Amino acid sequence: MSPLSRIKVAVVGASGYTGAELLRLIEGHPLIELVMVCGHSTAGKALSAVFPALAHSDMMLQSFSADSVAAQVDVAFLALPHGTAQEAADALRSRGVVVIDLSADHRFDDPEHYAEVYGARHLFPQRLVEAIYGLPELNREQIRGAALVACPGCYPTSVTLAVAPALSGGLLSALEVIADCKSGLSGAGRSAKVGSLFAERGESMQGYKTLTHRHAPEMEITLDKLRPLSGDRSEEQSEERLTVHFSPHLVPMSRGILSTVYLRLESGVNEDQVRQRYLAFYRDEPFVTVLPSGEHPHTLSVRGTNRCHLGLTVKGGLLVVHAAIDNLGKGAAGQALQCFNLINGFEETLGLNHIGVYP
Amino acid sequence: MSPLSRIKVAVVGASGYTGAELLRLIEGHPLIELVMVCGHSTAGKALSAVFPALAHSDMMLQSFSADSVAAQVDVAFLALPHGTAQEAADALRSRGVVVIDLSADHRFDDPEHYAEVYGARHLFPQRLVEAIYGLPELNREQIRGAALVACPGCYPTSVTLAVAPALSGGLLSALEVIADCKSGLSGAGRSAKVGSLFAERGESMQGYKTLTHRHAPEMEITLDKLRPLSGDRSEEQSEERLTVHFSPHLVPMSRGILSTVYLRLESGVNEDQVRQRYLAFYRDEPFVTVLPSGEHPHTLSVRGTNRCHLGLTVKGGLLVVHAAIDNLGKGAAGQALQCFNLINGFEETLGLNHIGVYP
Amino acid sequence: MSPLSRIKVAVVGASGYTGAELLRLIEGHPLIELVMVCGHSTAGKALSAVFPALAHSDMMLQSFSADSVAAQVDVAFLALPHGTAQEAADALRSRGVVVIDLSADHRFDDPEHYAEVYGARHLFPQRLVEAIYGLPELNREQIRGAALVACPGCYPTSVTLAVAPALSGGLLSALEVIADCKSGLSGAGRSAKVGSLFAERGESMQGYKTLTHRHAPEMEITLDKLRPLSGDRSEEQSEERLTVHFSPHLVPMSRGILSTVYLRLESGVNEDQVRQRYLAFYRDEPFVTVLPSGEHPHTLSVRGTNRCHLGLTVKGGLLVVHAAIDNLGKGAAGQALQCFNLINGFEETLGLNHIGVYP
Amino acid sequence: MSPLSRIKVAVVGASGYTGAELLRLIEGHPLIELVMVCGHSTAGKALSAVFPALAHSDMMLQSFSADSVAAQVDVAFLALPHGTAQEAADALRSRGVVVIDLSADHRFDDPEHYAEVYGARHLFPQRLVEAIYGLPELNREQIRGAALVACPGCYPTSVTLAVAPALSGGLLSALEVIADCKSGLSGAGRSAKVGSLFAERGESMQGYKTLTHRHAPEMEITLDKLRPLSGDRSEEQSEERLTVHFSPHLVPMSRGILSTVYLRLESGVNEDQVRQRYLAFYRDEPFVTVLPSGEHPHTLSVRGTNRCHLGLTVKGGLLVVHAAIDNLGKGAAGQALQCFNLINGFEETLGLNHIGVYP
Repeated sequence: MSPLSRIKVAVVGASGYTGAELLRLIEGHPLIELVMVCGHSTAGKALSAVFPALAHSDMMLQSFSADSVAAQVDVAFLALPHGTAQEAADALRSRGVVVIDLSADHRFDDPEHYAEVYGARHLFPQRLVEAIYGLPELNREQIRGAALVACPGCYPTSVTLAVAPALSGGLLSALEVIADCKSGLSGAGRSAKVGSLFAERGESMQGYKTLTHRHAPEMEITLDKLRPLSGDRSEEQSEERLTVHFSPHLVPMSRGILSTVYLRLESGVNEDQVRQRYLAFYRDEPFVTVLPSGEHPHTLSVRGTNRCHLGLTVKGGLLVVHAAIDNLGKGAAGQALQCFNLINGFEETLGLNHIGVYP
Repeated sequence: MSPLSRIKVAVVGASGYTGAELLRLIEGHPLIELVMVCGHSTAGKALSAVFPALAHSDMMLQSFSADSVAAQVDVAFLALPHGTAQEAADALRSRGVVVIDLSADHRFDDPEHYAEVYGARHLFPQRLVEAIYGLPELNREQIRGAALVACPGCYPTSVTLAVAPALSGGLLSALEVIADCKSGLSGAGRSAKVGSLFAERGESMQGYKTLTHRHAPEMEITLDKLRPLSGDRSEEQSEERLTVHFSPHLVPMSRGILSTVYLRLESGVNEDQVRQRYLAFYRDEPFVTVLPSGEHPHTLSVRGTNRCHLGLTVKGGLLVVHAAIDNLGKGAAGQALQCFNLINGFEETLGLNHIGVYP
Repeated sequence: MSPLSRIKVAVVGASGYTGAELLRLIEGHPLIELVMVCGHSTAGKALSAVFPALAHSDMMLQSFSADSVAAQVDVAFLALPHGTAQEAADALRSRGVVVIDLSADHRFDDPEHYAEVYGARHLFPQRLVEAIYGLPELNREQIRGAALVACPGCYPTSVTLAVAPALSGGLLSALEVIADCKSGLSGAGRSAKVGSLFAERGESMQGYKTLTHRHAPEMEITLDKLRPLSGDRSEEQSEERLTVHFSPHLVPMSRGILSTVYLRLESGVNEDQVRQRYLAFYRDEPFVTVLPSGEHPHTLSVRGTNRCHLGLTVKGGLLVVHAAIDNLGKGAAGQALQCFNLINGFEETLGLNHIGVYP
Repeated sequence: MSPLSRIKVAVVGASGYTGAELLRLIEGHPLIELVMVCGHSTAGKALSAVFPALAHSDMMLQSFSADSVAAQVDVAFLALPHGTAQEAADALRSRGVVVIDLSADHRFDDPEHYAEVYGARHLFPQRLVEAIYGLPELNREQIRGAALVACPGCYPTSVTLAVAPALSGGLLSALEVIADCKSGLSGAGRSAKVGSLFAERGESMQGYKTLTHRHAPEMEITLDKLRPLSGDRSEEQSEERLTVHFSPHLVPMSRGILSTVYLRLESGVNEDQVRQRYLAFYRDEPFVTVLPSGEHPHTLSVRGTNRCHLGLTVKGGLLVVHAAIDNLGKGAAGQALQCFNLINGFEETLGLNHIGVYP
């Protein structure tokens, strides 16, 4: 019926929360045909048994085989653990499949960075060169032509969107970001851990991996590229590296990230100037909304969506940006579909134009 | 682009949770054009100010005027309090607008019942005759031709779907239903009440209106019509009225209803026979899924959807049916859109084919 | 300072939620001296490392040795899995230690029942004879003289307290109980299971083990003993066994059980008569409160306490009793301390006179 | 029986969450006799009707009368709104009653500060001179002799305890504190507001009053007094005012505050030095625990207690302190009782030696 034919896809690594969200979004996308769903421990099971929300489905999970995937699909979404994803990605790319990788395996350009942060040598460093960092608000044009997209992590997406306009606009007086981030429990994954039990997490706020979380270097590298040209800066600053002091916390909710970012403004910059910069930067972005003065984003407003809501406060030379996203949406599966749309030349919002599931 | 033209609609009474869910579902429906949104206390405000999830919208809320609505739309969804809805419905019907009423105002055929249950005379008893009870699984054909649809309450939807196959199939030995229902807090509405505060409801289970809730008569009347013909029954039973012992509870979650229904089986009926009956009854229903033996529906699996999941257990002559729906979805806004699709001759699942927002 | 000397105790099996609650309550009890804490997988660790709420403690967990425990303490609380507890209990009893067992190992008089329900032969059937069922509201005098107490399960405590007055008072017309129970997640234990993760349970209601849970036989045996003498009953009834149709559910909260119990009243019995019976039955009970007409207990009101709140509704010949307890308090550790007080001749409420942690 | 006689007290303003917590803690305190409970809108009601957790109480709420209170009690706890509390405090002090004020009315020394922050002139400025700021960890000796104690707010308690050792120990290079605080919903009070409904707050994180909350000046004034003597500092610094950039957030939990505080360290100060300073500062404090390296406090560990857990992380010259308290405990009612113990010469931990209600 549609003049455009549907793209055949596979979801590889479909037994976690990101996989589940991919399946949910794919079912609502008019130009995707889901052909295969692969799981490791779940191969051979019915999708309906793994995800009760898919009780009406009659699809089966299969073991992953690059040949089999390549024979049947055009695009593969990888929702695999890092380390595992790079092998699948290489095998699929070698067979001509477009790969949208939601793991951490292709987010760095430099294999040294990868080794340092993830504690293991990257096996396919040439794929790091090929991969495009899948944050459309920064890399839209590159993503359009990409065959291997590395979707950003959930924390980096929210922090980068919160910082980018101020940083790139030369509004900041220091290359230092304090990012106090609050995440729902789905961010901790679907594996059985005492620390993720309801009874441990209900009625509980707690920080974790303060200043040592692996997402900090990802944020720093992405943001560092957004620094204004050295002409705008003193020499001293241009040699300095941008630092993100990243302090994540777990919140008793299932989904959602709220990042509160503290930035030091150049002397004399006021809230109105900041607001104008953010509004201009995101003017044409379909998924990013800068809230009116005095309003604070909350995670419920973007639940189940690919949206990002930003709130801005300026006082005493400090800019506080609140950024709310759904960690499984704009922080994972939603963003992957946004990249998919760009790669395939579809309207960017296709299948993603949801309103937050509120309440 | 579509061969079918879009239907113009208004949402009247859009400042509560049901209104919000209607707006969310309407935005995702390909053949609806939302023309007007009316609120009483919120008239003149931006939709984005009333619902932060609609921060990207530029629509304004208007005061309700039947003339104005009738001039612009084909169909009006009423998400008004009972008592108020009947006036709007009559005014709109008089002007030829198709009305889908989500309030309790047109759910009874008999004005005496309405007066008894809602404590006030119905002002437009002829509309009770006109109105069709909007539960497609029971009344599909009548809804197709309706101009005034009375959507069932959230509790009655789940209990009716849980009981209908066993009752109508003659499997029950008693005309008595115990319905122990558990609802999320959005069912208590968006008005400011101490009893609905997070701090009162978090970590709390509590019953309320035990055996006195207004939804019990609605369930009884609907189910009574499903009794098998008197030929199948003793005379004594055919004069007896079906009773629903309805015991609702509040659960610390925002959305979702889980109804646990206890039914006495005819002697000798086993779980397999019950399961076959339920599977047959719902074979062609797009939104009702009977889970495999041993599985229990949970509300998370249907969150944000128009689906109903049913689980069946039989032991000692007792049938326990668990029914999970989203109180704002299949229990309100989703069902209203399902009726809308039927009235307009669209595919019944159009704009409603969601998977549960899990986790 | 006190005229009474403190009793030396051990907590055996202290790494789960029941163990944690025992430690919390023991610290607040003026006449207990905690001498040893034993864990299996946690032996050798600091208590502060296993329970962050005990960060200020400098106690260490030890391996269990009956000799060592017997050498140091007068009373041992066993918070061990069933199967394991019976061995520890026997070894400790043989050495003269008073044992308060919170497991399921000594709740049945009859080893056949135990084998049937728990799927394994009881190794020390003579201990079943020795053990007293630790529900003070029914067995107070026997508990006073006991050396081995079998604390009831959390569900049976709430259901038994809800049913006992009506049943023993001859108000019921049928020996049949429907018990629809709702439990917080701590009831599922502290072991790492996907099904107990926050992201699986938040925003979710779900039934489980409907009509097949192991606590049903425990309820049936306890309640069966409360039937009025056969003189008050027809012969047919006196041979009938009481049945509990038990249907448990998981609720997104950490603690608390709300049991909704449905009972068929003798013809003509009204709510006032029922209320008088319950008030009389629990007149001198320090921990059971019958709420005024129209009020519904909620779990928050008894959170962290040894209390039970009961609400009563009568309509159409049906009695609905709501019973709220804390599953870790009156449903486990609190009740164990109540038994401890009785055994030691202390005031029954000593160290247990808490008010619910509300909100 | 006790050699010490019990002190007679009144709780004035007992219908909110702070009042409820006072009643809970007072019932567990061995040397308090609760004589009166006063409410405004609730006068004449039974305590059991206002607080379901007090269903077993037979006390009635009374209207407040200074004469009546003074005739019957030695100490009054005021849990009134600011503005109202100052009148009650003055009337009671004039009649010789010791007042422990939990409102904001006596937290500033300077009536100008009060007027500026609370938007109204203080009516009894001499009481500001009389009042002692009730944070025992800083003001223990002064509190012992006080007749009017101003208990700190919940946010200032956690932030002050987090910052005091580093600031007073001269470890900080800047007089600037970023305090990202996360509070449960009981902090928003028991009044009926749409913004505090369960359905608005469940699954939601949101900031509010960013950089404009009234607790920031309270923090600044308290902390400013802790600056090291000017001899340790450059002149420039000693004239500078300390600034707290305070950014509060609402978290979907009922109780608890987690404050994450970001502090810039003097060059060369490492984590071990910081830890030693905190351990030394709180060595004799019964309620403050500095967690071992790598551990993060969570709010569940201090739920229902007067405890504060602190976690320390140092990296890149930044000190991140996590402080967890119960906003109703150490943040309100618990601290009030701690002050009460000091005033009356009791052991400071009397009635407050609770372990966190975990889970």
